[in-house]
Amino acid sequence: MITSTRNERVRAAAALHRSRERRLAARHLVEGPRALGAAIAAGVVEQVFATPDAAADLVVPTGVDLLLVADHVLDHLADARTPQGIVGVARTPVADPEVLASGRLIVVLDGVADPGNAGTIVRTADAAGADGVVLTAGSVDAYAPKVVRASAGSVHHLPVLTGLTLREALSACRRTPARSAPEGPRPVQVVGLDGAGERNVFDLARDDTGMVLVLGNEAHGLSADARGQVDVLARVPIVGRAESLNVAAAAAVAIYAVAGPWD
Amino acid sequence: MITSTRNERVRAAAALHRSRERRLAARHLVEGPRALGAAIAAGVVEQVFATPDAAADLVVPTGVDLLLVADHVLDHLADARTPQGIVGVARTPVADPEVLASGRLIVVLDGVADPGNAGTIVRTADAAGADGVVLTAGSVDAYAPKVVRASAGSVHHLPVLTGLTLREALSACRRTPARSAPEGPRPVQVVGLDGAGERNVFDLARDDTGMVLVLGNEAHGLSADARGQVDVLARVPIVGRAESLNVAAAAAVAIYAVAGPWD
Repeated sequence: MITSTRNERVRAAAALHRSRERRLAARHLVEGPRALGAAIAAGVVEQVFATPDAAADLVVPTGVDLLLVADHVLDHLADARTPQGIVGVARTPVADPEVLASGRLIVVLDGVADPGNAGTIVRTADAAGADGVVLTAGSVDAYAPKVVRASAGSVHHLPVLTGLTLREALSACRRTPARSAPEGPRPVQVVGLDGAGERNVFDLARDDTGMVLVLGNEAHGLSADARGQVDVLARVPIVGRAESLNVAAAAAVAIYAVAGPWD
Repeated sequence: MITSTRNERVRAAAALHRSRERRLAARHLVEGPRALGAAIAAGVVEQVFATPDAAADLVVPTGVDLLLVADHVLDHLADARTPQGIVGVARTPVADPEVLASGRLIVVLDGVADPGNAGTIVRTADAAGADGVVLTAGSVDAYAPKVVRASAGSVHHLPVLTGLTLREALSACRRTPARSAPEGPRPVQVVGLDGAGERNVFDLARDDTGMVLVLGNEAHGLSADARGQVDVLARVPIVGRAESLNVAAAAAVAIYAVAGPWD
């Protein structure tokens, strides 16, 4: 059992709390049974650090290293305030940008800063059958431990593209897919979600048009720059006295509104 | 300026961090400009504690005491890790249970434990035009500082009933309203939200029937007891690889699905 936080493998894993190290190593941390189970199912987990208690309940597939660690070493590796005794190291998937040109529904997070919101939105996009998610360069790191955990494993379920600017992402969405029909690019509707949007999200056409839904920062909404790049601004209608919705709640309503019909 | 946390008014306000004190005093704390603005607009704020910096930007109506406090006193009063310089003391509204019998849409939180989730759901219910929210006895306290803050003021916008058991709440919802037509009780449909529900929330009838939407605990879902008390179990459909949705995201989709039509 590893009892020192200075152990070489513990140090290498703990370094993944920093986004720069995550990028350089192309690895990230996955905490807790649910997110770790999803990552193992996705075949991206290389190592699992577990306390003896947590390891007793754990089935780790062939090819994944299981390392027993003391409680204080696990605390050192875990980001959550109530770690559940296991932390894994996973390879960061490289999503194929081609999905942007061919997806029926792409969700773009532009400046979403809170990791809980970002992870929850990735989870909702997964549940509603979106084809991919983009976290633009101004958003929280998609592989920060809190995002991975809030996504409940969904960052390992669908393509998640990072490091693009909004302009690059939308340009890729509007491009002709490599395997497209000879008649040229299919129509794509780029919708920005905005409390003051002129269109109701429930009124947007749900036909064969590809849909790109752009969500902005939780406090400030879509930036002026982002507003200038979308085709239409749409709102989740509000009839009560609330001024606005939580961004992850608004995203859930809007994603399900455009991913339907459901009835 | 108050510089001691032992000041009598500071001590009385700080005691409101405990739910028992909130109940006895029928007062609660409101933190941050947005939630405090909503509480002031609702006419329930009695005192505002503010640092000199925060007070400079503040307009406090007649009848509300403004007390300047040192930074460390504000930190003592505030629950948030990044307090924004103001905390108010508000009267806890007493909601009329009659709304349960007459409301078109009532949202019931039965065992929702996370204050962020509970506050977000109250905010969404407000935005979608629900007539009232119930937090049953097994849920987080509706007036805990984190719930008030996550609701962005919505706990002061619509009737919020607390302290009832689920059975008492549903019985009140199914009762004939005091001012009802002579033909007797209107039909009410009590829907439990459950990942394995047999009905799709988007397929539920949206007619004149009153609707009660019951949401369970974030980790365990609806209790067996709750399942036995609802008329129908309904699910937010999942088509991707996510196993489930975050409870506040699922609630947002379901509340908007049953509060419509929106298009």
